Amino acid sequence: MIYSFENLLHNISDLLKKKDYRKVKEILSPVEPADIAEMLYEFQPVTRVLLFRLLPKDLAIDVFEMMEGPEREELLHHSTDEEMREIIEEMSDDDRTALFDELPAKTVKKLLLQLSPDERKVANTLLNYPDDSAGRIMTPEYVDLKEAMTAEEAIERIRKNARSKETIYTCFVLDSKRHLKGVVELEDLIMAEPHTFLSSLMDEPIYVHTQTDQEEVAQLMSRYDVQAIPVVDREERLVGIVTFDDVLDILEEEATEDFERMAGIQPVEESYMDANMFTIARKRFMWLVICILTETITSTVLKKYSFALQSVVSLTFFIPLLIGTGGNAGTQAATLVIRGMTLGEIEWKDIWKVIARETITGLMLGCALAVLGLGRAYMLGTGSGVAITVALAIIAVVLLGNLAGAFLPVIARMLKIDPAIMSGPFITTIVDVFGLIVYFEIARYVLVL
Amino acid sequence: MIYSFENLLHNISDLLKKKDYRKVKEILSPVEPADIAEMLYEFQPVTRVLLFRLLPKDLAIDVFEMMEGPEREELLHHSTDEEMREIIEEMSDDDRTALFDELPAKTVKKLLLQLSPDERKVANTLLNYPDDSAGRIMTPEYVDLKEAMTAEEAIERIRKNARSKETIYTCFVLDSKRHLKGVVELEDLIMAEPHTFLSSLMDEPIYVHTQTDQEEVAQLMSRYDVQAIPVVDREERLVGIVTFDDVLDILEEEATEDFERMAGIQPVEESYMDANMFTIARKRFMWLVICILTETITSTVLKKYSFALQSVVSLTFFIPLLIGTGGNAGTQAATLVIRGMTLGEIEWKDIWKVIARETITGLMLGCALAVLGLGRAYMLGTGSGVAITVALAIIAVVLLGNLAGAFLPVIARMLKIDPAIMSGPFITTIVDVFGLIVYFEIARYVLVL
Repeated sequence: MIYSFENLLHNISDLLKKKDYRKVKEILSPVEPADIAEMLYEFQPVTRVLLFRLLPKDLAIDVFEMMEGPEREELLHHSTDEEMREIIEEMSDDDRTALFDELPAKTVKKLLLQLSPDERKVANTLLNYPDDSAGRIMTPEYVDLKEAMTAEEAIERIRKNARSKETIYTCFVLDSKRHLKGVVELEDLIMAEPHTFLSSLMDEPIYVHTQTDQEEVAQLMSRYDVQAIPVVDREERLVGIVTFDDVLDILEEEATEDFERMAGIQPVEESYMDANMFTIARKRFMWLVICILTETITSTVLKKYSFALQSVVSLTFFIPLLIGTGGNAGTQAATLVIRGMTLGEIEWKDIWKVIARETITGLMLGCALAVLGLGRAYMLGTGSGVAITVALAIIAVVLLGNLAGAFLPVIARMLKIDPAIMSGPFITTIVDVFGLIVYFEIARYVLVL
Repeated sequence: MIYSFENLLHNISDLLKKKDYRKVKEILSPVEPADIAEMLYEFQPVTRVLLFRLLPKDLAIDVFEMMEGPEREELLHHSTDEEMREIIEEMSDDDRTALFDELPAKTVKKLLLQLSPDERKVANTLLNYPDDSAGRIMTPEYVDLKEAMTAEEAIERIRKNARSKETIYTCFVLDSKRHLKGVVELEDLIMAEPHTFLSSLMDEPIYVHTQTDQEEVAQLMSRYDVQAIPVVDREERLVGIVTFDDVLDILEEEATEDFERMAGIQPVEESYMDANMFTIARKRFMWLVICILTETITSTVLKKYSFALQSVVSLTFFIPLLIGTGGNAGTQAATLVIRGMTLGEIEWKDIWKVIARETITGLMLGCALAVLGLGRAYMLGTGSGVAITVALAIIAVVLLGNLAGAFLPVIARMLKIDPAIMSGPFITTIVDVFGLIVYFEIARYVLVL
């Protein structure tokens, strides 16, 4: 069940004050690791370490695996080498790799030395795979079976090894050279007549390579609804598995990256509150600079057309309204197209359909909004010339925004860049520049300047 | 393994031309349902139905569950009542509910009548739960056990019922009144000494209610890494379960909704290519209108300050650059804050920290960008007065953008609205209005107008 977090926190604090550690232990042992991890954040480092020590060892490791980078580092910092060694040794391999990725190289070196030779070997191998690759996030703790085994023998083997494995629900059939021959679900083993051979129970495996990008791994797993996917090396030998709990983390991580890219922010590793302010500023700076440099073009444009602005001052009044509307339409279109590409709803063959769709919706929206602009211009008493100019310009910039929003992500995809890079801010800026030129050309024509 | 999609498609088309249906069957039977579903889209409706009919029944149902709304509807449309009845009857309950959600009410009525009484009863119950609630997405196909059973008996019961269940890996212990007493993992049953009673093997269940929102269900499941979560009614009786494959779909759906909201688009149900253009235009229209109406304020502002614009024309040149930069900074800040809230990284107690952070980063970025603005102004030969005005204004608008981006989502959260509603377009517009006022006030002060 879900504990009332406040109550839990309250009780524990009380008991700590009373130094009734036995009771604390008693209360915490049935609590979910994720909840304990969250609770630990609420206490001062020293208390945190104390509480952590009160946890039964297995629980302590689960809790540790649930904690965030900085807190883990600090917790390790406050523990004795022996405690540290125990935690690291017992962590599951994939979580350990994730931890080492966060820790400073110095600490990692030190920790690696504390591991048992076998665990150290594993840890080193995993750390050598590229970031965000299947190899980096996989765990070698899988159940391996042989084709010649019967269902009965297989279940027996699973019984013997289950505890040390990440999952026993999906098992992997290997030949003598550890090549992946097939996968078999525990469900099928249980349902099967005991003497059936695995060769007749196993399925064709869906697998990835150690180099495969984690996003692709997640997409395959959700596409084929598999709870564990095998990872093979260049020689097609099974070296590890990625399980569904990893997939959830990956999908969340990748979504966050896209949100950031689409807002013109380079992906930030840490969570918002943990991240250093200078880091965030740096991640935001680049796109702001690119945009402001592009925007400087607008000053040139305005200077070039200042004759028009001087003869018809009221043209100025509508500049923000115009470019704002175009930018908004562009952001909308870009988001729809980029998301469609990410989800694989939009493919190459659809490109022209997409352009057509955005052109038509652009015209529909543009005309509808133009009416508002027209009315507004009359209200300001600018005279019908300017009013018509504004109305036409609105149609033009909304169309422009839609096309920029549709084309730029496509071009990015062509250049093999993540389309999400074509962020709202960037598109808004592009639309500002071209929107103004269109506006003044229309003005020159309508108002004969 | 993953099939070369093009080859598959090519072979099938050839064989269809040759009318060698036996071979088609042979080739398709080992192919993953997801791949067959995708392949079907590539053929004309008639061929699609023909191919679908060639599939072995079980595979056909899996494939059907993988298909998208419109294609499914059309396939049902082309099948005989008997074929239709078979498919619908055999579908798993949660997928059937999802299908009925997509189909026109008339069709649903017709289909419901074709179902066997039991299945119809289930379908009707599920359809009565609110949209996006746990009740709507759950399936009643779970394994129920009793506390008094031994591990051995439990496994026996699982063997008997496995085929009709969504999962057998997580089982649910109920009392005589079907109240949820605990959950037990198949892993623990297999590892346990055969005569152990479930009462000593089961864990405290993490559960949700039929009314719980699907997003909350997904968050709980990923937080506690559970592969199936029980759903109980008001009387705490177990009525269904939600499994991890549903979670993946929910997370993707919710992320898409957030992307759309943050771009000022009301969530679109269908995928981009399936959605009707007028629907999309309608979903985009509202925010564009809100923004353009807000933007009209900028015209008033500019009119009010036209005296300044007339005396110093060059002030006009920097309007797009200024408000653009402010809007971009605002979009960045808003995205970071909104995403932080969605992921639960930012909580109430952090609000002031967030404001502080955005103020500081705003000043840092503002000052850095001001230098560029200053340089640009000199290049255009506007004289130092305007240059200084522009530089100061840039600092002001970037700060303004950051604060708008930090505050508006917080306010939305206070009003119990999804913070994602504070979209980039809206924030850009707000910043346009206030940015201009700030700009001209600075100008008045610096240039003594």
